[in-house]
Amino acid sequence: MSEEAKVVVKASTLHTFCAQVFERLAVSSADAEIVADVLVAANLRGIESHGVSRLRRYVKGLQDGTMLAHPEERVVRETATTALIDAGAGLGQPVSYRAMKRAIDKAEKQGVGLVAVRNSNHYGIAGYYAMMALEHGMIGLSMTNANASVVPTHGQDAMLGTNPIAVAAPAGQEYPFVLDMATSIVPVGKLVVYRRQGKQMPEGWAIDEAGSPTTNTVRVLNNRLNRRGGGLLPLGGAGELFGGHKGYGLALLVDILSGVLSGAGYADYIHPKALEGKSPSAKVGHFFAAIKVEAFRPLGEFKAAMDDLIRRLKNSHKAESADHLFIHGEKEFEETKRRAMEGIPMEAGTRADLEAIAGELGVEYHP
Amino acid sequence: MSEEAKVVVKASTLHTFCAQVFERLAVSSADAEIVADVLVAANLRGIESHGVSRLRRYVKGLQDGTMLAHPEERVVRETATTALIDAGAGLGQPVSYRAMKRAIDKAEKQGVGLVAVRNSNHYGIAGYYAMMALEHGMIGLSMTNANASVVPTHGQDAMLGTNPIAVAAPAGQEYPFVLDMATSIVPVGKLVVYRRQGKQMPEGWAIDEAGSPTTNTVRVLNNRLNRRGGGLLPLGGAGELFGGHKGYGLALLVDILSGVLSGAGYADYIHPKALEGKSPSAKVGHFFAAIKVEAFRPLGEFKAAMDDLIRRLKNSHKAESADHLFIHGEKEFEETKRRAMEGIPMEAGTRADLEAIAGELGVEYHP
Repeated sequence: MSEEAKVVVKASTLHTFCAQVFERLAVSSADAEIVADVLVAANLRGIESHGVSRLRRYVKGLQDGTMLAHPEERVVRETATTALIDAGAGLGQPVSYRAMKRAIDKAEKQGVGLVAVRNSNHYGIAGYYAMMALEHGMIGLSMTNANASVVPTHGQDAMLGTNPIAVAAPAGQEYPFVLDMATSIVPVGKLVVYRRQGKQMPEGWAIDEAGSPTTNTVRVLNNRLNRRGGGLLPLGGAGELFGGHKGYGLALLVDILSGVLSGAGYADYIHPKALEGKSPSAKVGHFFAAIKVEAFRPLGEFKAAMDDLIRRLKNSHKAESADHLFIHGEKEFEETKRRAMEGIPMEAGTRADLEAIAGELGVEYHP
Repeated sequence: MSEEAKVVVKASTLHTFCAQVFERLAVSSADAEIVADVLVAANLRGIESHGVSRLRRYVKGLQDGTMLAHPEERVVRETATTALIDAGAGLGQPVSYRAMKRAIDKAEKQGVGLVAVRNSNHYGIAGYYAMMALEHGMIGLSMTNANASVVPTHGQDAMLGTNPIAVAAPAGQEYPFVLDMATSIVPVGKLVVYRRQGKQMPEGWAIDEAGSPTTNTVRVLNNRLNRRGGGLLPLGGAGELFGGHKGYGLALLVDILSGVLSGAGYADYIHPKALEGKSPSAKVGHFFAAIKVEAFRPLGEFKAAMDDLIRRLKNSHKAESADHLFIHGEKEFEETKRRAMEGIPMEAGTRADLEAIAGELGVEYHP
């Protein structure tokens, strides 16, 4: 572990700071709390790429008008089981929190609730919203489209977002199942981390603008920003031999539910001008679902079966190179426990960035 | 093309023959029609592995009592939006057809319908049921668990099924989007095809009982049958570097919705004795959903946006090695058109098997 990694900050300190930053930028106190919570939850779970290191992006968005501090958020269409919400070009997190809550309320009464959101922005970690269902004895689902970064099978241009899918299901004694995955092999944030560390990435994650495999993170990230071609490969890799068309299909599925069904942007139409600060809202879309377990079977039975399923997997033979078989979400729950106690490790770049934001906006920050 | 591949049979001939075989085995005429339709639909779509080449499996299941011809199928629990059905150890196809129809009926009235099925058997191609939603202006979803064939990340034993996910969404002028994918790199059927052709498979699809990569299809298929360890790798491959834990997570997700939520079997608990003909029902579970597009936006708008999304993808730059960028389902719709006209190519092995079944059961078969 380097010197850098030893600098830790308490989650509550980061939370208070982020909330104050958003309030200073005219975001309502309630919404500021939500965005801060989603950001710090990412840090607690060990997903640095979606944590406070992204604060600058939101600050910039609010300052240049890409994200509105006081959006006209409205329910466009609603039934007992479904809703369509227009986010009014606001921050992605508050509208998503309310959308998932609405899905949960519907599922409480009807067994299932589906809520689509359009005209929104980046919503942070997909898993945050899926996990909201857990305490209600529900299975939660959350997905979002995003700026085009992924090259479809047999294509050469980035045409789809890394379009994550998150699903959370409650267990009994065991940790809940929380799958939270980009439908590309790796998310964009992973390349950003490699770039920051000056590292080449493994061959097989991405292709360059000529369609050739590349290990050059800087090149791929620049090509993405300037829409110069190439990009990340879908889960399953290049071509069809190892199932790359399946990852591509999952990305497309997310785009259909998040973008087409909601009336948001989709494919390379996630508003490119928003990236240059020239348009309010990236026209991102989200899709949320909550399913009440008790509509199908008693929650206790379900949880007991989940525990049994998880233990069967964990007690199965391990590969020679491994001493542990993980269930999805487990690592992140352990990390959250640890970081809630010990604090959140902060990289030098992120620390400097937060201090700069504090100075610029005149917000107190004493890590 | 070999001599073999030139032998073609009309879809209607196969359909009539299959339906008669099931009726001869005491399946009701209505149910026999459904199973025949699902089987022949697979052949029409070019998915030989799930077509009439599987007829023997169902014949055997009905003869040895693993699959009941007259199951006590019943609705265990039902709300306006959800239902749980016990298949009574019958064939997977008829109960799945009715379950999806029920989901569609619910979605017609409520915007969404979810139906889980337990105590069932192999249901054929997942896409068949998802596609039933299309003509109703709905998005359809179908998934099923299956006998353990897939090794979880860092594991060494097959603990999960190839657990397919199928999603269908209507388009306007373009073909509908139909994703129908095993959550492993390849389905078991692909290995069976390689074995029949005496071919080694590419390295990276599967591991042997010692956890080593193998190209030996016979060995992997035998290990699977005898639960000797090793098996297919999840989408994303071995380890986490290329996202193997994501494919594993998707397989687990399907098991939770199809198996745990329904109260069916799951993981390596999909009834192993059923495979030896010692127990009725493999305790397979399925999960179906239908979402009414008009609950969110007018169908015409949705279809126009789908067409635009599809065309944007198709008009994007192709890889140098490719002249066509496919949307999921497109190849199968084209194949269906072709085979409906020209007939279904039949391999020698399948032809011999159908003729043997015809002889054994005294059913007319004149291909």
